[in-house]
Amino acid sequence: MSTGVHRDELVVRTRGRGTTDLTAEVARIVAASGLATGLATAFVHHTSASLILCENADPEVRRDLERWLARAVPDGDPLFRHDAEGPDDMPAHVRSALTQASIALPVRDGRLDLGTWQGLYLYEHRHAGHARRVSVTVLGAAGDSRASGE
Amino acid sequence: MSTGVHRDELVVRTRGRGTTDLTAEVARIVAASGLATGLATAFVHHTSASLILCENADPEVRRDLERWLARAVPDGDPLFRHDAEGPDDMPAHVRSALTQASIALPVRDGRLDLGTWQGLYLYEHRHAGHARRVSVTVLGAAGDSRASGE
Amino acid sequence: MSTGVHRDELVVRTRGRGTTDLTAEVARIVAASGLATGLATAFVHHTSASLILCENADPEVRRDLERWLARAVPDGDPLFRHDAEGPDDMPAHVRSALTQASIALPVRDGRLDLGTWQGLYLYEHRHAGHARRVSVTVLGAAGDSRASGE
Repeated sequence: MSTGVHRDELVVRTRGRGTTDLTAEVARIVAASGLATGLATAFVHHTSASLILCENADPEVRRDLERWLARAVPDGDPLFRHDAEGPDDMPAHVRSALTQASIALPVRDGRLDLGTWQGLYLYEHRHAGHARRVSVTVLGAAGDSRASGE
Repeated sequence: MSTGVHRDELVVRTRGRGTTDLTAEVARIVAASGLATGLATAFVHHTSASLILCENADPEVRRDLERWLARAVPDGDPLFRHDAEGPDDMPAHVRSALTQASIALPVRDGRLDLGTWQGLYLYEHRHAGHARRVSVTVLGAAGDSRASGE
Repeated sequence: MSTGVHRDELVVRTRGRGTTDLTAEVARIVAASGLATGLATAFVHHTSASLILCENADPEVRRDLERWLARAVPDGDPLFRHDAEGPDDMPAHVRSALTQASIALPVRDGRLDLGTWQGLYLYEHRHAGHARRVSVTVLGAAGDSRASGE
């Protein structure tokens, strides 16, 4: 069984600090790939926005995560010297380092195989809105993975 | 040289907060894949348990990591509003965001190529035991990677 | 369109705590792979050094990240019991767990496709210099990804 690759990208227009659900868009790219078994890897091309997998049922979960990050990495912290773009500049880089720029998600039976309560989110860490580029790379086989011995 | 994909999954029955070593199970899946060169990606289908790579020699390392997380993300923190499932509910989500849901491990010569002191662990962040689903996807080539020019 | 795999590895000689830019070396491995579309995954075979993607323009950003980590995970913290190798031993493991051992980067048109301000760094978390092994695995297709339907 040989494998193929499919790539696409999203431009996510954020409205300042907070999360944007990318799950449906990535699922659509997986469906368009024609690949049945493998991985879909999302990658954000920035260091002041990042990716998280988070509970998708109660939005309070993402607000609580924000509350924790805002306390752990405070805006305007005098610890930071890099503040060229404002008090949220360096915290955005630290938050990005603590979360992920790149997450590989399983593809099974031609679909994104996340847990029931799992969503993929872009996390904008700056106060201002930005256009964030996200690449999605699907690597896998068109056929049934059992062909390879599962 | 063409590549193949192999997938399998584990159900890890945890006994509450703490780590379970998955290294041997993932190594077994790599061996079963028949693939020699590539990556084995583990993925946990939950947002209150996660994956870590950690020192596998002294179990005190993982206990110290737990001590640090318990202090940094305290159970029952009044900061959190999402506490539907108890004082460890929201901390479990924050701990998961700070560690990983998905980790890609190199496969070389048909074996999982971790460092000598490196183990892959499922980290249960809830106090109660759960059945945690982990997918393992192996992508790579059956033959010697030198065929592609290494 | 079938895909191929190419692997190589780096030995990074660090000079104690701090970051080493790996971007050019990984880009060179991607070019040597002959693969045009896919992913290049870097993996560090240690649990006291890790990988980060970070802003590559102002070195103060990485120094500020270090200041934040040094405060959040202090050397010699009495919380830690595992101190066999000194006061920076356990903090190195915690810092590694909070960042990444494994990062997948997109490959496009035969080149590493990072954001303009994005660099890949090895982060040495120990005070002493070490030789750190990093594997780079490139998985993808030699041809144009549009062949698969992009």
